[in-house]
Amino acid sequence: MNGRAPDALRPVRIRKHFQRHPAGSALIEIGHTRVACAATIEDRVPQFLRGTGRGWLRAEYALLPSATSTRTAREAARGRQSGRTQEIQRLIGRSLRSVMDFAALGERTVIIDCDVLEADGGTRTAAVTGSFIALVLALDTIIPRDKTFPATDFLAAVSVGLSPEGEPLLDLCYEEDSQAAVDMNVVMTGSGAFVEVQGTGEGRPFTRAEHDALLTLAAGGIDTLIAYEKDVLGNALDWRVGSIKG
Amino acid sequence: MNGRAPDALRPVRIRKHFQRHPAGSALIEIGHTRVACAATIEDRVPQFLRGTGRGWLRAEYALLPSATSTRTAREAARGRQSGRTQEIQRLIGRSLRSVMDFAALGERTVIIDCDVLEADGGTRTAAVTGSFIALVLALDTIIPRDKTFPATDFLAAVSVGLSPEGEPLLDLCYEEDSQAAVDMNVVMTGSGAFVEVQGTGEGRPFTRAEHDALLTLAAGGIDTLIAYEKDVLGNALDWRVGSIKG
Amino acid sequence: MNGRAPDALRPVRIRKHFQRHPAGSALIEIGHTRVACAATIEDRVPQFLRGTGRGWLRAEYALLPSATSTRTAREAARGRQSGRTQEIQRLIGRSLRSVMDFAALGERTVIIDCDVLEADGGTRTAAVTGSFIALVLALDTIIPRDKTFPATDFLAAVSVGLSPEGEPLLDLCYEEDSQAAVDMNVVMTGSGAFVEVQGTGEGRPFTRAEHDALLTLAAGGIDTLIAYEKDVLGNALDWRVGSIKG
Amino acid sequence: MNGRAPDALRPVRIRKHFQRHPAGSALIEIGHTRVACAATIEDRVPQFLRGTGRGWLRAEYALLPSATSTRTAREAARGRQSGRTQEIQRLIGRSLRSVMDFAALGERTVIIDCDVLEADGGTRTAAVTGSFIALVLALDTIIPRDKTFPATDFLAAVSVGLSPEGEPLLDLCYEEDSQAAVDMNVVMTGSGAFVEVQGTGEGRPFTRAEHDALLTLAAGGIDTLIAYEKDVLGNALDWRVGSIKG
Amino acid sequence: MNGRAPDALRPVRIRKHFQRHPAGSALIEIGHTRVACAATIEDRVPQFLRGTGRGWLRAEYALLPSATSTRTAREAARGRQSGRTQEIQRLIGRSLRSVMDFAALGERTVIIDCDVLEADGGTRTAAVTGSFIALVLALDTIIPRDKTFPATDFLAAVSVGLSPEGEPLLDLCYEEDSQAAVDMNVVMTGSGAFVEVQGTGEGRPFTRAEHDALLTLAAGGIDTLIAYEKDVLGNALDWRVGSIKG
Amino acid sequence: MNGRAPDALRPVRIRKHFQRHPAGSALIEIGHTRVACAATIEDRVPQFLRGTGRGWLRAEYALLPSATSTRTAREAARGRQSGRTQEIQRLIGRSLRSVMDFAALGERTVIIDCDVLEADGGTRTAAVTGSFIALVLALDTIIPRDKTFPATDFLAAVSVGLSPEGEPLLDLCYEEDSQAAVDMNVVMTGSGAFVEVQGTGEGRPFTRAEHDALLTLAAGGIDTLIAYEKDVLGNALDWRVGSIKG
Repeated sequence: MNGRAPDALRPVRIRKHFQRHPAGSALIEIGHTRVACAATIEDRVPQFLRGTGRGWLRAEYALLPSATSTRTAREAARGRQSGRTQEIQRLIGRSLRSVMDFAALGERTVIIDCDVLEADGGTRTAAVTGSFIALVLALDTIIPRDKTFPATDFLAAVSVGLSPEGEPLLDLCYEEDSQAAVDMNVVMTGSGAFVEVQGTGEGRPFTRAEHDALLTLAAGGIDTLIAYEKDVLGNALDWRVGSIKG
Repeated sequence: MNGRAPDALRPVRIRKHFQRHPAGSALIEIGHTRVACAATIEDRVPQFLRGTGRGWLRAEYALLPSATSTRTAREAARGRQSGRTQEIQRLIGRSLRSVMDFAALGERTVIIDCDVLEADGGTRTAAVTGSFIALVLALDTIIPRDKTFPATDFLAAVSVGLSPEGEPLLDLCYEEDSQAAVDMNVVMTGSGAFVEVQGTGEGRPFTRAEHDALLTLAAGGIDTLIAYEKDVLGNALDWRVGSIKG
Repeated sequence: MNGRAPDALRPVRIRKHFQRHPAGSALIEIGHTRVACAATIEDRVPQFLRGTGRGWLRAEYALLPSATSTRTAREAARGRQSGRTQEIQRLIGRSLRSVMDFAALGERTVIIDCDVLEADGGTRTAAVTGSFIALVLALDTIIPRDKTFPATDFLAAVSVGLSPEGEPLLDLCYEEDSQAAVDMNVVMTGSGAFVEVQGTGEGRPFTRAEHDALLTLAAGGIDTLIAYEKDVLGNALDWRVGSIKG
Repeated sequence: MNGRAPDALRPVRIRKHFQRHPAGSALIEIGHTRVACAATIEDRVPQFLRGTGRGWLRAEYALLPSATSTRTAREAARGRQSGRTQEIQRLIGRSLRSVMDFAALGERTVIIDCDVLEADGGTRTAAVTGSFIALVLALDTIIPRDKTFPATDFLAAVSVGLSPEGEPLLDLCYEEDSQAAVDMNVVMTGSGAFVEVQGTGEGRPFTRAEHDALLTLAAGGIDTLIAYEKDVLGNALDWRVGSIKG
Repeated sequence: MNGRAPDALRPVRIRKHFQRHPAGSALIEIGHTRVACAATIEDRVPQFLRGTGRGWLRAEYALLPSATSTRTAREAARGRQSGRTQEIQRLIGRSLRSVMDFAALGERTVIIDCDVLEADGGTRTAAVTGSFIALVLALDTIIPRDKTFPATDFLAAVSVGLSPEGEPLLDLCYEEDSQAAVDMNVVMTGSGAFVEVQGTGEGRPFTRAEHDALLTLAAGGIDTLIAYEKDVLGNALDWRVGSIKG
Repeated sequence: MNGRAPDALRPVRIRKHFQRHPAGSALIEIGHTRVACAATIEDRVPQFLRGTGRGWLRAEYALLPSATSTRTAREAARGRQSGRTQEIQRLIGRSLRSVMDFAALGERTVIIDCDVLEADGGTRTAAVTGSFIALVLALDTIIPRDKTFPATDFLAAVSVGLSPEGEPLLDLCYEEDSQAAVDMNVVMTGSGAFVEVQGTGEGRPFTRAEHDALLTLAAGGIDTLIAYEKDVLGNALDWRVGSIKG
């Protein structure tokens, strides 16, 4: 645990406007994990939504080949995305869609790009948290202040796991994660509800009590992250999340 | 709920030896969902396991194009497996690996094939349950009776969800699933431990209480399935699961 | 020849309505070969037929990986269909199109799916025969009884071959097929005309006399199959094939 | 029929050594159809033949995009070979293998490349005939004169078909082919035996009598082609085909 | 240098109308290098040009597998075009576009196909020169004589390089090219201006003086090629290049 | 020109050790262009170099989708790298190989990854310059100080172009580049020799005088960049480049 308490997050920092071109962007750093998150808005929707007045959001995720301790082969060169990549980008997309009011967005598509510059565990949960900031920044550029804001609640994610000795740990780094018996990713909203709970016991199965302890630990970490998100957005912006106008 | 109680499984039937060629096979029917599950054993392992004395298991999953209410495009014709397919086959593989003793298997690979003949909700959980039977049948053909059996525990899976009105439902059919606000897939062992918990609230976030009620409901359904698995394997075979020899 | 005469078909059984979702479906079993055949009807046609008032039919074919004595790699995982698969699905499509009146069908596309559940020789010819039943069942659901029926004649297919000793054999199983010096697939209509004759002498070339004997043997087998097709469709349906209305 | 008799071949010309690099090559022209055929010999065999002392032969086929009346999209740009291409290259490979003594070849692979420079019907049968010449030229460069020659017999191919009026036609050009009711490709050896008979009645089914007439017509055309092959190879080379040495 | 002077081109020959189907075609032979060049004209443009009144030109390039001293794997079989192929076809396209007046062409696309029948160095520069002839022939078939001709100037290309001893050489054959320390491809117009200069010193870097000498040598070779192009087009056609009408 | 002189570089900054995992890494910023460059060293070589005692270097390049003013589709999702991407990574690889002593490297492969975080013109030349720093840092970690250093000279790259008015400009930003009539990328060594000269006149052809002026301008810019590279490496490291030991 690198000297930190088992229920402590690694140091977190979100740098807004990391890139100039996308409507919203943020670089999130959690421990040594760094993910560039961007939100691009396009004025069209997939076929199945045309004419409905409703928008859409989808996410893409990739590791820079040089982001991992052993170089990861470039997916563009291999000609296809791995199952892991597709699973992660589906998770990010589902999570963000759960706090979107697509009628308020109108017939537009938000594309979320999460590119991992450095990986040290927890890249998918960092991607959810960082993308939420990029999303709010992007929506702020297109939704007038007197309109309902399409992001209906805050959203953050964290990983938790059981150490080989059975101790619940918050926000695992790569080394902790690779030794963990059980691994869980949790996504929650600002109002404390769950959006995704994905627990896996490939090392060994886990008991109901262990599952409950992990969920409680995750909820605490997400509280901290959401408080930080409000700091990052600041007074000028945080009030818009969930705001509804006639 | 087609007239059944919210905590009742749909009718389940497992037909052993559905196919002649694979080492083990089973056709599982749950309601109108039907999945052909096969376990093939190859005398080689992936590169990273050569010389370790340990084996491996991986799973593949597909829908017959004609298995769904609207025809599903054939992935072989499109040239790639969808993200959904990859996510499901990763889930099946992880779940079965959690009850495998790979040292007892030795340097062999088990390939699980799950082909959905008819889809009416719950195909991935049916695939886990049916594949477990195919796996045990296959292992029985190669592991002498005086050796440790590589399947260390029973395994079954079920889906649960919240109806639009917030009622917890067990074993959702397609129509129930497509209306559900929250959807959860749970995989458990015969000793009552969790292997996978995957809850998703794309319709709306869910509370801790809702989450706990779903988990309890799932555990009950899995108890029933594991009892049925023992029936299906019968006295001649069920004792081998988890049996350890000097 | 498994104890049967050289000019005898293996036991044949066709089970109608094997699947719930497609417009028509049938499971055909010939010896140990089992093929699920489905006919789906879509209300659109390929680009080159738009506005012509005419429809189309195409076929797809696959082996379940577990259908063969040695497991066959899944084509969706390999990312492309083999040459063998493409050749077979082109054969099935051409054969069925030869008995279709596409003006009577109107601007619709029939998609035939043939998925081999178990392979023991003759899968492509079984697929033609089984698909014909699925096709008639599907057409019956959309074509009113007072209209010309788009299937203009019965259709069935069989394989024949020369044993290593030069004896003509009907309906070869896998083992017979793999030893055969010459292999021939024949597709014929209910009126006794040929639609496809594909004879190959990779083992050795064959004489005109051998060719003629194989063709005669095939014609006999197809007669039997077409009589059985009429049984399967029954009085309620068999009269529609080839029926023309004002 | 461009003024020629229904049983006359179009003008045929084979130009040996069309390319400098492959072991054997030939340009075949039949009417306006022109196909560059090359035979390359590699000192290795596919996995399944290693250590058997036996060789292999496989064929590849492509149309130049500019070879057809409407430009054909380049398969390398589309990223895959069409079903038609794969079917044709399988036919060419099977046909040539039927006259190969692979023990006499030894552990080598012959790769046949057929590239159509100009297409006017009959490209696949021209490819078989032209490739046979390229094959013999290539084998002559590596097999000493006192050894058994791996090409055991002459080989040629031709297309035949039924005109809309039911007249049997030999060696159809593109326009004739596209109007034909029935189309048949026939491959035969120098000793008058059949290697491939592929008859298709997509326009309409055909009778046994029609089938027999087409086969007889094809056999006559192939006689002429094989006589021409002997001329092309000349006295210095034609005796090697089928020659067996102690 | 095969007995020719270091500043001499290899023998050049361009055969017009090599193929019947494309609007324009030419076979160019330079030494042993032979490239079939074709220009096809389609009555549509890419999305970004629709409604602009302007046309487009793109080029495709491939080696016949049998064109090289060691057989080159077929890109259609491998499923993708190599980086080298893409680089070359981009070069050909850019070069030809530099002498096109796309307003004079109107909303049409010219597709250039360059297929190398035999490779002995300089295939990409031969492809540019041969394609220019095919392009002029194709444009002549669709542009009335009283209209501005879309080809605004002559165009040709040549390779130059430094021998291992540092001597500048014109028009390198394969063997010279593979030994060259520095390799440069130059494309120029009939008015003596540069369109592409691509110099590469993978063997060793090169000085400014060496660079200047190579450029001068290339310009001389291109002068000769453009004079030959005028001969090939002849009086009936060469005046159209660059001709502007009211 | 954003207020700078036509012969002035945009502000340049190279940040060493941008990533933790690769053997060497650097973030290069030139104006608003930012490229993460990494050098990974693997203890194996491609097939054609095994047993030769010599190493290899290859490069990969990608744009983050969010790096460009209009979002660029992710190549991993599209399933293949564009021609532009392949052209650029071939250029980077060739350039760096020109200053490598592969015998001094031994049988190892250097993989260069260039990932563009933000694009504002000149990404390929920035990638060459930044990768050179990453390469030297990586080599320094594996080559003992008493051995010949495999990087034989400094290397940098810059783009130049002609403004629409014909003025030569150094180091074009995206807007300048998209208006330029002529575009040239130049790679040079520390000793002032050329490695790559790639000039393209798609807008209009260019004269010899224009070409010469661009080359002179590029040489000046590269002088400045190489001086900066020495600063970045510092006294502790810059002496190793080109150092030869017994």
